[in-house]
Amino acid sequence: MRTRYHDHLEQLAGQLRVMCARNREAIAMATDALLGADLELAERTIDYCAETVAMRENTEHAAVTLLALEAPVAGELRRVVTALQLVDDLTRMSTLTEHIARTARRRHPAAAVPAPVRNLVSHMGETAVDLADAAVGVLTTADPGDAADLDARDDTMDDLHRDLLAAILAEGWDNGTAAAVDVTLLGRYYERFADHAVEVGRRTLYMTTGQRPDDTALQPG
Amino acid sequence: MRTRYHDHLEQLAGQLRVMCARNREAIAMATDALLGADLELAERTIDYCAETVAMRENTEHAAVTLLALEAPVAGELRRVVTALQLVDDLTRMSTLTEHIARTARRRHPAAAVPAPVRNLVSHMGETAVDLADAAVGVLTTADPGDAADLDARDDTMDDLHRDLLAAILAEGWDNGTAAAVDVTLLGRYYERFADHAVEVGRRTLYMTTGQRPDDTALQPG
Repeated sequence: MRTRYHDHLEQLAGQLRVMCARNREAIAMATDALLGADLELAERTIDYCAETVAMRENTEHAAVTLLALEAPVAGELRRVVTALQLVDDLTRMSTLTEHIARTARRRHPAAAVPAPVRNLVSHMGETAVDLADAAVGVLTTADPGDAADLDARDDTMDDLHRDLLAAILAEGWDNGTAAAVDVTLLGRYYERFADHAVEVGRRTLYMTTGQRPDDTALQPG
Repeated sequence: MRTRYHDHLEQLAGQLRVMCARNREAIAMATDALLGADLELAERTIDYCAETVAMRENTEHAAVTLLALEAPVAGELRRVVTALQLVDDLTRMSTLTEHIARTARRRHPAAAVPAPVRNLVSHMGETAVDLADAAVGVLTTADPGDAADLDARDDTMDDLHRDLLAAILAEGWDNGTAAAVDVTLLGRYYERFADHAVEVGRRTLYMTTGQRPDDTALQPG
């Protein structure tokens, strides 16, 4: 009985890792599609994200089944509750990535990102991949140190996001309002993707230590 | 024992209702602060939202305690799991509202919303209040009909959001890029607020019927 129980816990953790690894893959694809104005890749990304979103129900079901059949307590209960919450973060990461790919598709054959901010968006894409990668790591080790480290790494994305808004608002912006709107929303999608990756660290920290990092750092969403 | 258990379930449901009712109050205040360029009201809204966010921990704790002490099954388990998920939606509604109020504060004494889109933003604010109001209702009755109705009412906000973006992108927009960026983000905050209110309907429907509405309607977060 205990063995089956721990198998189920491991299976649940595995489902979360798969969703997170897929998000890491997808955000790299979406950024390439966006910067390369690559329609085929944008469509592949949209489909790939929809598949990840579809994994939500099974993962939630696995967590609820564990609660129903095993009535875990203490640390193991916290683990299942955290898993339930993480499913939402991981699902949202997919949906945000899908929106980046949809922006690429909507503007094709033009590029949605004008030349002056290409480098910034490219950096945001790389940072998102790094954070998702670190989140996969935290889901694998559940190490409080790694989790706290991930929580601290959100600053890079925040700085890039601030630079991006400053670039749109700078005197020399002559790419029109439509591009300003696109880039504003793209910046927001990357920032929110990062927030959810960081939530993986925050929630894992809470799960392992019972301590929640300072809530004032919470971003809207 | 059963009595204490049901008291706890009722208490948990009450906490969710309070959070949702506060969000309803706050989004009305934030919209007034925004359209009236009212600094004092903006600051009051920011504080009020922070207090709602601070309720998250207690509410989560109440849900986890119920799982730990009572090991509910079937419908009651689903109720507690749904409560856990709703805490996140209700917390995010507060944070989004806070960001609307912060925009009002940042632009004061100027108005963040230029005249041509004031009416649209005002309608978005009213729609957000309506949806939060309906969400309080669903949290009170848990009626599947009301929940499905709430799910269907997201269209109004989506239409307003589309009109808002169209207005920014229209030929005649001569309010500058900074206002375009502000209004783009404000539109996004209202839309996301509505999405989370609608999630209250979706999750309540799932809780009471086991059926999830079509997931393709899910918005990014």
